[in-house]
Amino acid sequence: MFRAMKYSPGCLELIDQRQLPTQEIWVRATTLEEVAIAIETMVVRGAPAIGCAAGWGLALDAHLNHVNGTANDLWNAYKTRFLKNVDRLARTRPTAVNLFYALKRFQSLGEEIPNDTSMSKVAQRFLDLAQFLDDDDVRTCKSIGEHGASIFKSPVSGLTHCNTGSLATAGYGTALGIIRSMHSQKKLKSIFVDETRPYFQGARLTAFELLKDNIPYTLISDNMAGYAMQKGLVDFVVIGADRIANNGDTANKIGSYSLAVLCKYHQIPFIVAAPMSTVDIETLDGSKIPVEERPRVELLEVNGYRVAPSESKVWNPSFDVTPASLISYIVTEKGVHKPPFNFSQMRF
Amino acid sequence: MFRAMKYSPGCLELIDQRQLPTQEIWVRATTLEEVAIAIETMVVRGAPAIGCAAGWGLALDAHLNHVNGTANDLWNAYKTRFLKNVDRLARTRPTAVNLFYALKRFQSLGEEIPNDTSMSKVAQRFLDLAQFLDDDDVRTCKSIGEHGASIFKSPVSGLTHCNTGSLATAGYGTALGIIRSMHSQKKLKSIFVDETRPYFQGARLTAFELLKDNIPYTLISDNMAGYAMQKGLVDFVVIGADRIANNGDTANKIGSYSLAVLCKYHQIPFIVAAPMSTVDIETLDGSKIPVEERPRVELLEVNGYRVAPSESKVWNPSFDVTPASLISYIVTEKGVHKPPFNFSQMRF
Repeated sequence: MFRAMKYSPGCLELIDQRQLPTQEIWVRATTLEEVAIAIETMVVRGAPAIGCAAGWGLALDAHLNHVNGTANDLWNAYKTRFLKNVDRLARTRPTAVNLFYALKRFQSLGEEIPNDTSMSKVAQRFLDLAQFLDDDDVRTCKSIGEHGASIFKSPVSGLTHCNTGSLATAGYGTALGIIRSMHSQKKLKSIFVDETRPYFQGARLTAFELLKDNIPYTLISDNMAGYAMQKGLVDFVVIGADRIANNGDTANKIGSYSLAVLCKYHQIPFIVAAPMSTVDIETLDGSKIPVEERPRVELLEVNGYRVAPSESKVWNPSFDVTPASLISYIVTEKGVHKPPFNFSQMRF
Repeated sequence: MFRAMKYSPGCLELIDQRQLPTQEIWVRATTLEEVAIAIETMVVRGAPAIGCAAGWGLALDAHLNHVNGTANDLWNAYKTRFLKNVDRLARTRPTAVNLFYALKRFQSLGEEIPNDTSMSKVAQRFLDLAQFLDDDDVRTCKSIGEHGASIFKSPVSGLTHCNTGSLATAGYGTALGIIRSMHSQKKLKSIFVDETRPYFQGARLTAFELLKDNIPYTLISDNMAGYAMQKGLVDFVVIGADRIANNGDTANKIGSYSLAVLCKYHQIPFIVAAPMSTVDIETLDGSKIPVEERPRVELLEVNGYRVAPSESKVWNPSFDVTPASLISYIVTEKGVHKPPFNFSQMRF
């Protein structure tokens, strides 16, 4: 299975998602700051993948501190730097909650470690946790895929937005995990991939993954989705999530909300796929989710080629929030959840 | 006022809309075939502008035939070539009805001309008709602008799609004509311009025109429209039309239908602006309108830069059809029309 990040002690290799599909270039991050910059500049993107990368970043820094320090270095002396690292990573992307989930797991681990623990042991425990988060994400994705595929009985055609596959997770994918499972169960006729402006994650990344896996897809621009639905070509829409509030309101890549409204109008199921770590029960509803705005240049230029006057005023929100009332199912590793959603009251 | 095409005997100059906004290059078409190719390759686009360009093309060819022929050349001898020219132009773009309207006007003129008319007289009459169609389009646009602006009493914010301005018409514009009139009457706060994939007519052309006229606008990608509406930033949407069926169903740039559905859901007026020549009373409803599909490369590359795997299957419809039930107003030079629409029964 394709993996978008590979860790070896002292180095996190990340496929540069900005260069796909024309070039497969691996970026080598050898410091925590380089990992943070890779997240900020979208070398790696996708909420679960960002969480995993952050985990590897913390493991990397503990490793460096251990090998560069003296044999007597203790956790107590490193702790301030660790908390700074957590802060640094927390500032990279504000919307994806998986990042904060990964950071919290490391903070909890940090709180458990006795002050006089040697850094060699700390580095090992950090490595183990990063590896666990990575493996766990793949297991979770496969479970999401199975649950999601169970919604459908016979072969259908769908539409997906942005990239939610191996590139957006530790592997397999969330919404794309459902597509993969449906395909392997022969429940998928074909899938529309919308290009997902302004970053072209659909055109560049989802198409790249589906092509690799021989899953039939058709590329469209975002504004063609409504017309495809009007013509009866879309039986369902499935997207990922960057953050799901307790009531089911879902922040995801800009354009998701428009698709949800189009689904409502055409009476097409609108499915959100995400690990439970994307559910933020402390965020009661979508109005509390911060939405990142990205640089104006993303709309003014494509790879340096100017498509609009440089003087233009630009609005470039990276996400939007779809209210739970427009969502038919939220699929997690725990199963297929139906409205009304209230994740804090859920018992498994 | 900015004009996108300029005719002088023997030459139609067209601003190359594919190069805007980075370069203002004028293409010189000196044969009818060159005019046809300019339409096909989208040097000139926009339904009314295509109609005007076709008119100038026919005037150009009659002129060439006159100056290159003998003094004794007669209409009778030229007629076969004229009909071939009409056929050639009719094959350039299938959806825009203004093209066929202009061609019909020329055919009617042709039928009126006695067989023994000298080509110098024919060339003059063709020139007069092309000039009339051009002037008439500007007058029509200004009238559309005034009628459209009358819908609003106080300053509001809107959203427009594609380019419907001076570049899409002989001058002033249809939907953008309404924006211009609203701005001059201080009824416009600001206008969202969506970039209009895959050809970027909004980003490249509408932004270019609004900037020239100092009309405040904000550039967004197509998939941000829903989110802008959800946030209450859009009071109306106004678009142009490539063909309006007798019952009001409207073919326009791909993405128009999605906007209409989003307007319905958010209870925002959805306005279509077009000259009466865009209304095709012989097309009873939208299901009868042919929708052009354009080359796949438009979705695979931006200015030669590849944004999707070249092996991708692509669907690239250039237009969609919005049912009349989603349209609040159709504004023509005759006034503001409200549903139910039935243009063949209209009396002015």
